[in-house]
Amino acid sequence: MGALQKLLVRGSFAMQRGVLESPVIAYETLGNLSAAKDNAVLVFTGLSPSAHIASSPADPTTGWWEDMVGPGKPIDTDRYFVVCVNSLGSCFGSTGPASLDPVTGDYYRLDFPVLCVEDIANGGALVLDHLGVDVLHTVVGPSMGGMTALAFALQHPDRSRRMLSISSAGRSLPFSIALRSLQREIIRTDPAWRNGQYDFRRGPVSGMRLARKLGMITYRSAAEWAERFGRERATREPPTDHPFGIDFEVESYLEAHANRFIGGFDANCYLYLSRAMDLFDAANHGGSLEQGLRRLRIESALVIGVTSDFLFPLHQQEELARTLKTCVRDLEFKRLESIQGHDSFLVDMDRFRPSVAAFF
Amino acid sequence: MGALQKLLVRGSFAMQRGVLESPVIAYETLGNLSAAKDNAVLVFTGLSPSAHIASSPADPTTGWWEDMVGPGKPIDTDRYFVVCVNSLGSCFGSTGPASLDPVTGDYYRLDFPVLCVEDIANGGALVLDHLGVDVLHTVVGPSMGGMTALAFALQHPDRSRRMLSISSAGRSLPFSIALRSLQREIIRTDPAWRNGQYDFRRGPVSGMRLARKLGMITYRSAAEWAERFGRERATREPPTDHPFGIDFEVESYLEAHANRFIGGFDANCYLYLSRAMDLFDAANHGGSLEQGLRRLRIESALVIGVTSDFLFPLHQQEELARTLKTCVRDLEFKRLESIQGHDSFLVDMDRFRPSVAAFF
Repeated sequence: MGALQKLLVRGSFAMQRGVLESPVIAYETLGNLSAAKDNAVLVFTGLSPSAHIASSPADPTTGWWEDMVGPGKPIDTDRYFVVCVNSLGSCFGSTGPASLDPVTGDYYRLDFPVLCVEDIANGGALVLDHLGVDVLHTVVGPSMGGMTALAFALQHPDRSRRMLSISSAGRSLPFSIALRSLQREIIRTDPAWRNGQYDFRRGPVSGMRLARKLGMITYRSAAEWAERFGRERATREPPTDHPFGIDFEVESYLEAHANRFIGGFDANCYLYLSRAMDLFDAANHGGSLEQGLRRLRIESALVIGVTSDFLFPLHQQEELARTLKTCVRDLEFKRLESIQGHDSFLVDMDRFRPSVAAFF
Repeated sequence: MGALQKLLVRGSFAMQRGVLESPVIAYETLGNLSAAKDNAVLVFTGLSPSAHIASSPADPTTGWWEDMVGPGKPIDTDRYFVVCVNSLGSCFGSTGPASLDPVTGDYYRLDFPVLCVEDIANGGALVLDHLGVDVLHTVVGPSMGGMTALAFALQHPDRSRRMLSISSAGRSLPFSIALRSLQREIIRTDPAWRNGQYDFRRGPVSGMRLARKLGMITYRSAAEWAERFGRERATREPPTDHPFGIDFEVESYLEAHANRFIGGFDANCYLYLSRAMDLFDAANHGGSLEQGLRRLRIESALVIGVTSDFLFPLHQQEELARTLKTCVRDLEFKRLESIQGHDSFLVDMDRFRPSVAAFF
């Protein structure tokens, strides 16, 4: 419990647009499954986190949702058996483009099949099979994880009674598609990407740095930065060999964030996961969003949105909530006034903790 | 009249942070200066246009503000003598980083002094001197041109009675700084940029393409694209050698726009003009925005903002209008509901024409 575990899927795993042989799905569990097996909570992640959601004796390092999950926390591991999976296609233990293809003995790289959010959801379902969990107490996901939670509920309608969707959407719209598509093109344009055949020790570092900066811009908000940085000048002197170096503190901030990210995330995995979000549309499970969602057997759902989020804008989350209302008996929509944009669920814990705690 | 003209400034031109020897300022004029010399309208441009604001017999090609300027149009060249300057630092006739330094005989490239919006404004003032215009009827500018119009009025308080500021701001805030800074870094990261020493026939084409795409994303709005593209798939098949090619119509649109831009704009000029916007802060002309604007001798001003603009957001334009109100007798603020974002002044002519016409 708490340490990274790996499920080796035996045989073929059918994806939406291809097949993987014997993939691995990495996951962590916290808390204990009840005798009735009715207290399992499955959490899907955003694009970049691993399965390490919170610290525990087995792994005392800080998890990506440390303030939300643990003993006595809003998702209380004294009461719930929390399962967090590393997304299929990612690079923290689950099979993805940076993994070896057991059939060819080579790394998948761009031979990895087109990844869909639905495939990530099915990876989670296999982990539940392995753990002996038929029906979840709740499926949870923020951002891409919210899309995955929805895809899980659409594909496995009898496997969860409750759903918590945070800062997510039923489909990607062209503005966010454009922002993610440009991040991918920036990575692909780096000559070091080498059409996906880069040296894993180096890779397209420049492209990843720039893409991450663009990502960060979309994850926060103008209002937060106006308050936090204003027109404050960068404190350190710009290096003399950079004629267009850093002038403002906001530029230093992005630089520091980007430098922390690169090296830790495989570029091809980033491309696959990013595109999976663009391709997602719950309407593919019916003729429209409304018809798609009729497949759901969710009884109770909470949709949380943030006013300052422009990547998964509030109106999309309102649309999701409105549509869910037609098929979910107990549907609540919570609009939070956080100013930290899309990332608020990671940082504005004072607003998010009570909302999540109330649902659990 | 109507054809590009060039003013060769004799001697040294003092910039905020350097000196240029004998620079050239390119400009166009439309209409005729009245005998009383009281009907001149000076227009500063956004980052990318040339001085060619509208067609005329001398240059029948379409200008960048064709629908706004001309005989019988909102800025009526039958009544007004319209002067449009190509910004100092740009590459359409005015001296900029792509020009030859007459002192060294080499291209300026990165030896061009740091460019400020104030310098562009002073270039416009020299053109007025040359044309024998002491006092303008109105100084006009959209976007960066609005900053320049403000800088003109701050530095030459007796030279304009009226000001029209469109989709602009009194200073850049960190969110827009981050978006522009990233565009510059994308260009500088292209190996073909070669620290500014690129071959003018080629240059950093990839970097310029990506930067322009990011620019386009900031110039329009999510609402417009949702309406215009939705999740429409790209009509042409993605080329087979592009494993992460174009899936959606919005991606095709950005590709087409970026391809039209590159080749036409010098990369170093783009860097200089882009940074000039980040550096602009009317508060530099006083201790604060309020104190800075007290220098103005403008009698009548119109500030137009657009609700869907997130690069020069409405609240910044409201702030500018509110502050101007303390020192401009006749100040009007117009909030337009255009959905085309920052670029609305170029495309939503049905809303913009009447507003501008009413001011003139």
